Amino acid sequence: MNNARIAMALILLCALQASAQPQEATQPMQRQHHLMPVPAVVQFQSGRLNIDASFAAAIVGHGDARLEAGVQRAARRLEGRTGLTFARTLAADPQAATLRIECRGPGLPVPSVNEDESYSLDVSDKQAALKAATAVGALRGLETFLQLLEGDRSGYYIPAVSIQDRPRFPWRGLLIDSGRHFEPVEVIKRNLDGMAAVKLNVLHWHLSEDQGFRVESKRYPKLHQLGSDGLYYTQEQIRDVIAYARDRGIRVMPEFDMPGHATSWLVAYPEFASAPGPYQVERRAGIFDPTFDPTREETYKFLEGFFTEMAGLFVDDYIHIGGDENNGRQWAASPQIQAFMKAKNIKDNHALQAYFNQRLSRILEKLGRKMIGWDEILHPDLPQDIVIQSWRGPKSLAEAARKGYDGILSAGYYIDLMYPASQHYKNDPVAADATLGEKELAHILGGEATMWGEWVSPETIDSRIWPRTAAIAERLWSPREVTDVDDMYRRLDRVSMELEELGLMHEKNLPMMLRRMADTREIGPLRTLVATVEPVKEYRRNQGRTATMLTPLTRLIDAARADARAGRELTLLVDDLLKDVPRFSRNRERLAMMFTEWRDARPALDAMIERSPILREAEQLPRDLADIGSAGLEALSYLAAASAPPDGWREAKMTMLDQAAKPKAEVEFAIIEPVRKLIILAAEMPALKSLPTSQWRERVQTVTAPKSR
Amino acid sequence: MNNARIAMALILLCALQASAQPQEATQPMQRQHHLMPVPAVVQFQSGRLNIDASFAAAIVGHGDARLEAGVQRAARRLEGRTGLTFARTLAADPQAATLRIECRGPGLPVPSVNEDESYSLDVSDKQAALKAATAVGALRGLETFLQLLEGDRSGYYIPAVSIQDRPRFPWRGLLIDSGRHFEPVEVIKRNLDGMAAVKLNVLHWHLSEDQGFRVESKRYPKLHQLGSDGLYYTQEQIRDVIAYARDRGIRVMPEFDMPGHATSWLVAYPEFASAPGPYQVERRAGIFDPTFDPTREETYKFLEGFFTEMAGLFVDDYIHIGGDENNGRQWAASPQIQAFMKAKNIKDNHALQAYFNQRLSRILEKLGRKMIGWDEILHPDLPQDIVIQSWRGPKSLAEAARKGYDGILSAGYYIDLMYPASQHYKNDPVAADATLGEKELAHILGGEATMWGEWVSPETIDSRIWPRTAAIAERLWSPREVTDVDDMYRRLDRVSMELEELGLMHEKNLPMMLRRMADTREIGPLRTLVATVEPVKEYRRNQGRTATMLTPLTRLIDAARADARAGRELTLLVDDLLKDVPRFSRNRERLAMMFTEWRDARPALDAMIERSPILREAEQLPRDLADIGSAGLEALSYLAAASAPPDGWREAKMTMLDQAAKPKAEVEFAIIEPVRKLIILAAEMPALKSLPTSQWRERVQTVTAPKSR
Repeated sequence: MNNARIAMALILLCALQASAQPQEATQPMQRQHHLMPVPAVVQFQSGRLNIDASFAAAIVGHGDARLEAGVQRAARRLEGRTGLTFARTLAADPQAATLRIECRGPGLPVPSVNEDESYSLDVSDKQAALKAATAVGALRGLETFLQLLEGDRSGYYIPAVSIQDRPRFPWRGLLIDSGRHFEPVEVIKRNLDGMAAVKLNVLHWHLSEDQGFRVESKRYPKLHQLGSDGLYYTQEQIRDVIAYARDRGIRVMPEFDMPGHATSWLVAYPEFASAPGPYQVERRAGIFDPTFDPTREETYKFLEGFFTEMAGLFVDDYIHIGGDENNGRQWAASPQIQAFMKAKNIKDNHALQAYFNQRLSRILEKLGRKMIGWDEILHPDLPQDIVIQSWRGPKSLAEAARKGYDGILSAGYYIDLMYPASQHYKNDPVAADATLGEKELAHILGGEATMWGEWVSPETIDSRIWPRTAAIAERLWSPREVTDVDDMYRRLDRVSMELEELGLMHEKNLPMMLRRMADTREIGPLRTLVATVEPVKEYRRNQGRTATMLTPLTRLIDAARADARAGRELTLLVDDLLKDVPRFSRNRERLAMMFTEWRDARPALDAMIERSPILREAEQLPRDLADIGSAGLEALSYLAAASAPPDGWREAKMTMLDQAAKPKAEVEFAIIEPVRKLIILAAEMPALKSLPTSQWRERVQTVTAPKSR
Repeated sequence: MNNARIAMALILLCALQASAQPQEATQPMQRQHHLMPVPAVVQFQSGRLNIDASFAAAIVGHGDARLEAGVQRAARRLEGRTGLTFARTLAADPQAATLRIECRGPGLPVPSVNEDESYSLDVSDKQAALKAATAVGALRGLETFLQLLEGDRSGYYIPAVSIQDRPRFPWRGLLIDSGRHFEPVEVIKRNLDGMAAVKLNVLHWHLSEDQGFRVESKRYPKLHQLGSDGLYYTQEQIRDVIAYARDRGIRVMPEFDMPGHATSWLVAYPEFASAPGPYQVERRAGIFDPTFDPTREETYKFLEGFFTEMAGLFVDDYIHIGGDENNGRQWAASPQIQAFMKAKNIKDNHALQAYFNQRLSRILEKLGRKMIGWDEILHPDLPQDIVIQSWRGPKSLAEAARKGYDGILSAGYYIDLMYPASQHYKNDPVAADATLGEKELAHILGGEATMWGEWVSPETIDSRIWPRTAAIAERLWSPREVTDVDDMYRRLDRVSMELEELGLMHEKNLPMMLRRMADTREIGPLRTLVATVEPVKEYRRNQGRTATMLTPLTRLIDAARADARAGRELTLLVDDLLKDVPRFSRNRERLAMMFTEWRDARPALDAMIERSPILREAEQLPRDLADIGSAGLEALSYLAAASAPPDGWREAKMTMLDQAAKPKAEVEFAIIEPVRKLIILAAEMPALKSLPTSQWRERVQTVTAPKSR
């Protein structure tokens, strides 16, 4: 595989060089497109392929049920968008087909990290020609084809284009944690559809946690009977999900977290714990003590039985054994375990866990599976064919690569931390300063977004995953050089709508949740507010520790989004205004509208909060929002009048913003920084006027830079 | 049952009389509430039961898994709305519980038309006491309890109230047609939740049609294999749906339509058709020829085998055999069938169908099931224990009742016809002029809303069923005297939001569909437009007959709703203004805002349509809307200035409105009539001024009445 990846990189390089020059008769064109992830090579040409009711696809070369089903799904989506009705059968004459798919073979029977996902798509006035080595490559190309759709007065069309595409990394995953909060099969399926739309190829299914054991075990039925509150996947459902994923060229890799994060197992089987039970399914969030006993042979016998059953259910090459956040307390407290360590000359808990992992790796090897685990499993005693999933960062990944281990990056892709898409987007699996050789680079297989499940429900999970995960998908698929954040957001907006056609609810559940909170249809002012705030970041949610896995996730924080729309818009508008030297008038009208809306939303919001106790925790927010809006309007009017604000104005506003910036109701304003800049600018106008205008721009940048606060 | 129902009616009468007088110490209060359906007797009192984190329910008397699950579901919904976390266990001490449920018994093992659904709910400062004879009655009371929730500055609470409640009719159904368009299990389940929320108790599941056979048959697998395009319910899924419905006190009555509407059966078994095959699954909408051959013994052998299998799957007392719209063409064209009729002295097709139904009724009788069918099955040769479902109207229902047949009404509840909720709401199963005796009245069991499936998809079906079906549910449950349309709409708005918490997508799919159509998030102007239009009514959709069951249902008509919000609001505002003699100034500001919005939406809509060919069919609508808005503004300004419009103004506007009233893109404006009234009023001002103001009101009513056009 490594050689193949190096070859791939070389091909890509050649292709990129080739793309810099016009080819033959076709004229390359600049054209704004909505492709996400951006393909390796895109060259628009003049011309268009009309999409009308005569649309028909043909498959030449290899055809199979998976590819045909994929073509039918794509055709239905195209029908939905265009309102056109196509023939349900494939075109009899491939030359006459609108979309001609040439597939050279089925690809691997089970989706794999070795799958060839490359494809090319050439669209002319006459036909779209999609070529791929495998059915999966063709499926990837179909998603690109759908993203190319445009419309105008003359109807729908695909612009003429030549695309050669292949992923930068072969492992592009999304972890869904069904352990902490159970997610029904329909949630998993619609997210698989979303993954396929942005060319992700691994569902990392986190299936056991302190808070829940989610797989039916026929061999050890007490696991799901006692450890799941009745919320688990039957084996039939799991097979269904695996088949559904395979249909979309997606691997399903199960994770059974051990030796820690294991409370729910030990509810059923306390005899395999490192301390006597009984245990209860954990309801809180955090890191807990219950840990498998790595010193007892019965533990391995049980785990071998369990993994043998699971290996018959899950078909992926890899089984994830977790391995993270073992706090070691039960081990330290057990004389018997301490004696075992002494006898075996195991010097610390990390070494004991390595011993445990070695035993597991032998079990998995017998079952023909490769082991993968979190950073902590990395230990010299472990075989080299394990894969390290890094929550620590590109540095630890590079380190593993130097030691010869394959790895994938998840640090920086923790979408549960509620950072904006831009932050994840900038995070590359290969650190810019990594001094890795080609062979070491090839060990970096890709990455995974991680949807940890502490604070997501079936109602909110889509909005935590999407659309931000599409930006991560692009990072893992597209050339490293594709890094324009503004352009990413422009395309993300379109992709977000396209994801809706797959049944994802990331957009549409927001107003529904606001209606429920406010107990009214008239949620305009609440939408205004929620567009300005974001959930608190990192693990600052629930620092009072009163919420559990049973707490309803229907508060303002659950409706709020990681990328507050108003925050992003305001930042762009203000940064643009700051550059408008010397008049600073650009965007003033739009800014005044936003500020006015914020200032004036308060009475309606106050009245709403009166009637809706669930919003009471947020009662300071309308006041803060009104103050921020008023401050913004004042700044604009000083700028417009080119008059100096009174003494103390700037300081008073800064104090107000500092207060407003403090999280309330576990959300925080995403509009503070740009307003701060405007206030500083207004206050600096007298000083600016004493300088030549040629120096204004630099001066403005300096005084409004965050550090100048 | 009939005696029981008469007794029930008497009890109800007594209760209503009792409710007219204050009882004991408690003081009855007028209070606006959101209950839907309105209970038989509601008496608010002073006081409130606070709902906080200490909420706990207790079950005394009979407890069972169904009731406990229902209590847990109710508690989760209450948690979702309030953001509070309750203990998951029932209260140990019933006296200390917030909600004390006293259930006298389990009720019938299988949901039945004979189920006792009555309950009482007494809420005081200390406790809510819910009493019911059966678990189903308690479930009904739980829904009422949830609808009572209110909030204010002091928190959430249930107002003190005394409710005695029972349904007016024992059969309150919703027909879902899965034949024409398949609806996945999750669609069925979320609609069952919606039904339970408004106390409907029969899912009439229309499972076979010309366009699809939707049930797995293990005995005749060709039925689902050849007749369904792979879109059918497995027997396991059907059992799951039946259990899910039973958990909510809802019957699941299957319909297998015959002898007509049978194309999909005959694809698999052409040998049972009245004309030689082969047959294809029908794609068009309409009435088609393929019909079972009622003259062949093999037909009955097959149907007996089939119904025997289905009787093992479906547990309801009734099996619906359809029987509607047999066009008789195949029978007329078959010499063999004609000979059979002659030999048996069967004089016409109706008699031949009665012969067929008699044979069916004997099969069903053997299986212990009662037969129900559409109007057409009524025939003197049929036994008296069949039930007639009337699509013809209350008159035909009364006629059946006089002949001693039980019946249910569906005429007037055809929600696929796209009439507003008010129209269905006014439709009573017992015609006001029906001269039926008590015994005959008791034959009228209730009614069913019918969601025929020609033009609904999983994406749109919720918005066709809800919220209008809640108004029908009220008609069938609440006392006949509950008929205030404005109050119904006020409550319907709240119920519509409550239905969303069950996962129903009637509200939230609308903006999603508009985003897809317009290919932008900025759908404001399109929302403005869609709020003013309704889908064409009756069967005026697809009169060009180009659409089939394979046509995407993603056009403007599919997003448009039967009760256009702007239409309803405008009607109320204008009717109110017309009564504001002599100044006609009431609501002017709000009206001017609406009209201005309509006038000004055009440029943005025009630009949107340029980019979105799927909206092209609607390109006249923004022009019409702008014209209507402008005309409204002109009328308002003539009224404000008390000046006469120029000659010809009224006529020109009427011509414009007549043009605008014509359907385009299969939608029609719901705002024409009120604007027409305003224009007439403005034009009539000079004439009015010649009258004493005491005569104005009557004169205005006369000239603006629809007939005066």
